[in-house]
Amino acid sequence: MTSSLPTSVDPARIQEVLDGRWAHVRRDARENLNDPDFLPVYGENVQEARERVTRAAKKLAESGRVGFGFPKEYGGEDDAGGSVTSIEMLAFGDLSLMVKAGVQWGLFGGALQMLGSRRQHDLYLRDVMSFDLPGCFAMTETGHGSDVQQLRTTCTYDPATETFDLHTPHQAARKDYIGNAARDGRMAVVFAQLITQGKNHGVHAWLVPIRDEQGQSCPGVTIEDDGAKAGLNGVDNGRLTFDHVQVPRDMLLDRYGQVAADGTYTSSIANETRRFFTMLGTLVRGRVSVGGSAASATKLALDIAVRYGDVRRQFAAPGEDREIVVNDYLVHQRKLLPALATTYALHFAQGQLVETMHDVQAAETIDEKAQRELESRAAGLKVAQTWHATRTIQLCREACGGAGYLQENRLPHLKADTDVFTTFEGDNTVLLQLVAKGLLTGYRDAFGSLEGWGKVGFIADMVRETVLERTAARALIARLIDAVPSRNDVEIPMLTRGWQLKMLEFREKHALEGAIRRLRKNSTTPGMAPFEMFNDVQDHVLKTAQTHIDRVVMEAFVAGVDRTDDPAAKRLLDAVCDLYALSTIEADKAWFLEHGQLTPARAKLLTSTVNQLLRDLRPHLATLVDAFAIPHGWKAARILDEEEARQEAMAARDAEVRSEAEGDSTPEESATDLQVAPAQ
Amino acid sequence: MTSSLPTSVDPARIQEVLDGRWAHVRRDARENLNDPDFLPVYGENVQEARERVTRAAKKLAESGRVGFGFPKEYGGEDDAGGSVTSIEMLAFGDLSLMVKAGVQWGLFGGALQMLGSRRQHDLYLRDVMSFDLPGCFAMTETGHGSDVQQLRTTCTYDPATETFDLHTPHQAARKDYIGNAARDGRMAVVFAQLITQGKNHGVHAWLVPIRDEQGQSCPGVTIEDDGAKAGLNGVDNGRLTFDHVQVPRDMLLDRYGQVAADGTYTSSIANETRRFFTMLGTLVRGRVSVGGSAASATKLALDIAVRYGDVRRQFAAPGEDREIVVNDYLVHQRKLLPALATTYALHFAQGQLVETMHDVQAAETIDEKAQRELESRAAGLKVAQTWHATRTIQLCREACGGAGYLQENRLPHLKADTDVFTTFEGDNTVLLQLVAKGLLTGYRDAFGSLEGWGKVGFIADMVRETVLERTAARALIARLIDAVPSRNDVEIPMLTRGWQLKMLEFREKHALEGAIRRLRKNSTTPGMAPFEMFNDVQDHVLKTAQTHIDRVVMEAFVAGVDRTDDPAAKRLLDAVCDLYALSTIEADKAWFLEHGQLTPARAKLLTSTVNQLLRDLRPHLATLVDAFAIPHGWKAARILDEEEARQEAMAARDAEVRSEAEGDSTPEESATDLQVAPAQ
Repeated sequence: MTSSLPTSVDPARIQEVLDGRWAHVRRDARENLNDPDFLPVYGENVQEARERVTRAAKKLAESGRVGFGFPKEYGGEDDAGGSVTSIEMLAFGDLSLMVKAGVQWGLFGGALQMLGSRRQHDLYLRDVMSFDLPGCFAMTETGHGSDVQQLRTTCTYDPATETFDLHTPHQAARKDYIGNAARDGRMAVVFAQLITQGKNHGVHAWLVPIRDEQGQSCPGVTIEDDGAKAGLNGVDNGRLTFDHVQVPRDMLLDRYGQVAADGTYTSSIANETRRFFTMLGTLVRGRVSVGGSAASATKLALDIAVRYGDVRRQFAAPGEDREIVVNDYLVHQRKLLPALATTYALHFAQGQLVETMHDVQAAETIDEKAQRELESRAAGLKVAQTWHATRTIQLCREACGGAGYLQENRLPHLKADTDVFTTFEGDNTVLLQLVAKGLLTGYRDAFGSLEGWGKVGFIADMVRETVLERTAARALIARLIDAVPSRNDVEIPMLTRGWQLKMLEFREKHALEGAIRRLRKNSTTPGMAPFEMFNDVQDHVLKTAQTHIDRVVMEAFVAGVDRTDDPAAKRLLDAVCDLYALSTIEADKAWFLEHGQLTPARAKLLTSTVNQLLRDLRPHLATLVDAFAIPHGWKAARILDEEEARQEAMAARDAEVRSEAEGDSTPEESATDLQVAPAQ
Repeated sequence: MTSSLPTSVDPARIQEVLDGRWAHVRRDARENLNDPDFLPVYGENVQEARERVTRAAKKLAESGRVGFGFPKEYGGEDDAGGSVTSIEMLAFGDLSLMVKAGVQWGLFGGALQMLGSRRQHDLYLRDVMSFDLPGCFAMTETGHGSDVQQLRTTCTYDPATETFDLHTPHQAARKDYIGNAARDGRMAVVFAQLITQGKNHGVHAWLVPIRDEQGQSCPGVTIEDDGAKAGLNGVDNGRLTFDHVQVPRDMLLDRYGQVAADGTYTSSIANETRRFFTMLGTLVRGRVSVGGSAASATKLALDIAVRYGDVRRQFAAPGEDREIVVNDYLVHQRKLLPALATTYALHFAQGQLVETMHDVQAAETIDEKAQRELESRAAGLKVAQTWHATRTIQLCREACGGAGYLQENRLPHLKADTDVFTTFEGDNTVLLQLVAKGLLTGYRDAFGSLEGWGKVGFIADMVRETVLERTAARALIARLIDAVPSRNDVEIPMLTRGWQLKMLEFREKHALEGAIRRLRKNSTTPGMAPFEMFNDVQDHVLKTAQTHIDRVVMEAFVAGVDRTDDPAAKRLLDAVCDLYALSTIEADKAWFLEHGQLTPARAKLLTSTVNQLLRDLRPHLATLVDAFAIPHGWKAARILDEEEARQEAMAARDAEVRSEAEGDSTPEESATDLQVAPAQ
């Protein structure tokens, strides 16, 4: 609901809203992590990159800024939200360092903290925090990344020796893509099927030495190198194979399942599946961090592309001496501004997610429903943020032309290093499926009745009516939607916030109901194999998840605008929210036309309304990236420092040439046209 | 118009159609360039990569397979089509080598050949071909890549010394991104404004020594290094700055413009703009090669992803022992198959383009209209192929999960190295503009009346009625379209080829007419600045170009299917063509709904028709990549060799475990669910 925009907005007022609950962590990072050693270096080979990043990780440990998430008694701050926020801030620097930190303190340290006992914390946690004990999180296998419950590594207890036998039965069961494995790791948290007294109790984790202090592999452990990757080459990913490695009984991380000396298994959670999900649920922080890191990289890419686009010029307008600033081109705005609006929207959604995560994890007892919802939300926002990062960084790199392909301008690093985010911490397509499943079952009885996603038995349990649970600012959203008359959509101005919300809500509800209807029909179709029942509607099901994520993100944005105090900042954010809403609807215009929610005339109006928003927001482009408050030293993009000076020098020289030419015979008219330099 | 598909199709029969007119060049490359030295190497630093690629380029020169495009009297084959085809084949190997070859023999050698005189050929061409004289193509400046006519480097003739003074007036005029500049190049073809007798005659090219045999920069020449790039690190891109460098008169490449000793300028083409475009037009081969190379990289990526998806399994279906092959998932098919269909379509369009280029360049005299059409077609297909490559390789990398992020599986190399294709040899957005402009003026009087694209004066000249010129197989296309009744579109089966063609033709015509209408209206709007007149409709104008390209590509595919002899191959290609057409229409469904070409019910039918095509084509996925006939040695993707064996080993072990478990108590039901390993 754009009212006319103020001519100028103080980015600091927007920054306050963006910085949110962990503003102190962001501020601290901006001031104290502004160290060239934490920035990327280019052109190194793999060994050089790994050595440098290991050194940087040690320096980071010494800075004392890696312990937010750990218990206070070990020097941490018991602050889950702070730990994710600090990772988000690290993601403005060398992303290899961020991932290395994430592996050491998030995954490895986090698993030890969440799944281990007090005794195990006492033994290892301080060394983990200081990086004196570099470690791995050995969950993924070559054969199983998305379906972790089906890991094939076994860990079989033998009461005679009081040890576990950890074994990789075949190459598909080797641990793969394991950070810290190829070079630095001395221990690993290894996930495997726990077998005792002839019975498999499902996936558990052990702390297993893999390399001695001299860097030699431990007996029975084979370590291979994953070698060069598309990016993140400062992280030493590798493969671990275990050949009947003997693991002492007390190395089982046994908070959720214990094995007595005689081999008797006990757990406070009797149901194996519930136990598995409870254990994994404690590790959600990693997924939340990946989404947030993707968002940071996206902000940095947009910052670079927007600033470059504000000084870069190409093609002269008739009658003008200077060429046109590329940000003035409609098509350039069409690229940058909707991406920027989505970045804002996702920022608010991520902020909300981190708060929820912090509160769920800070609670005395585990609220299974809340944990399950958190996981679904974390999955959905990880998908949205990482795909948005991949698309947006690509777009920013192209928007900077040849300069965007040079490492010195930072964008290639951002692209290559974040690329894996779409498939690690959960393949995005699989995570969308997870989100969809949560919607289909309305989270109800989630631990008990969910079965293999090829099965559709759970359809019988599905909720009868789909009532969408509103997220942030429930009362506000309800009020905005209720204010929209239900009959004459055709006349409602598109900048009406309630109309925008209603459109996204309608789409989600309709998609969800349609998916349920089709699944039900298939489940009663004679002769249809269970896999086919589901596969037949897989595209529809994933779309349902996408529509859900869009709505959740929109509601978070609306709540964020609502709590903005500064009137000018609020008006600007309001317009950015309009652009997010309308460009999201525009991107799926066909659906709204197909389902009678847009007439052809309204659909055309939508396009021109988006174009008008682009014109309105154009003067605020720089303000909107300023508000990210990325310290100049972190940007490290050479074009930002040089392009403006070059353009000024060229303008000065051109003016000289023009004045020299005055009085000469009129020069032959130069008919500029599009002709472009060949490739190199 | 799919009839039921044969159960199996011989890929060799499809390959014959794909190989086309230069089948002999492809066959020769498959047999004789199958050399590990021409494959990418990973994890190197920049210097290591450059040294290796320089060695490979010398080896390639020695193979005698770099001269297709050069005149027979210098050892070449006078075969323009063959030269592009050979570059396309090189693009299956190390893309740095392909680009290095493109710089040396395509751009540098090509400019010398096309713009130089017989005397200059005699002096240099053999050394260029043998790589004894490595050279650069110094056109792009930091400040001007897309608008080459506005280059700021000057080359001013002084009759007193009979030399040119080559000068870089400011940093925006330095030559940038120049391949072969940072390390190897000894000469450069430098583009600059030719000034003699006080008059600027526009952009011309000179052959300029930049580095002596000891590797020292020549006097007045400053060489800088562009440093590490996102990819293509085997190519030594750099910057050249000229400080009043004295260039002998006979180093002007003077085929199209000569300067006499006294400074008198002569040219066979009096009009400066026509001369400029004629000169640049001779260099179109580079752009055609980039599109074709992007296509090769895309094919290789699809080959890897399709084969991996045929053996990779994840998640078990209920009641099944083994997990599901990922290519069986609908959403995986939704990713791979439309991309594969588009790759086929673009292959046929590229084949047609290369033939046209060959014939235009082989002609005795320059046909300006044909050359202009060729340039527009080359621009459009370069855009289509490079964006398709960027999207598809990204998709393939994600489709391979974590394995797709490892260099050993080839996809990261393909992604990073082709990424720059979207902005070099013409920024894609600028090239779309070029295509649009060609459509708006109907190519008419192209050399005379086209002005700066910010100006809309040319609107007055625009064609009154938009009659689309059909491309390949004109009679066939006309017959297919005419066979479709014009009134009741609503009932025409979507697999009717004529309906598909008609939809794409209607969209182009309508978009074009709409753009013209809007431009005309703006041009008569009082007070609207000329830039605004155009900028206001820039998105519409670019869409027009896109619709044109889609139609041209579709017509090429239809012609390709038509000339397929083998009945089974033809039926399969027919279905692939259906998928290309319908997924292209589906991608722009909103437009067809908005413009009354699809009803909501038909729009839904379109989606289910595409899904049915995916099911029909699923059994032929492997055949369709087999037909690309990429030698196994060129693929060099480790997952292709290993994954199947791993899956078999796992299946065997799982069967053992099951048989051990028989007779035991029923195991607790394992409720598999989506749970995914954290990131590393």
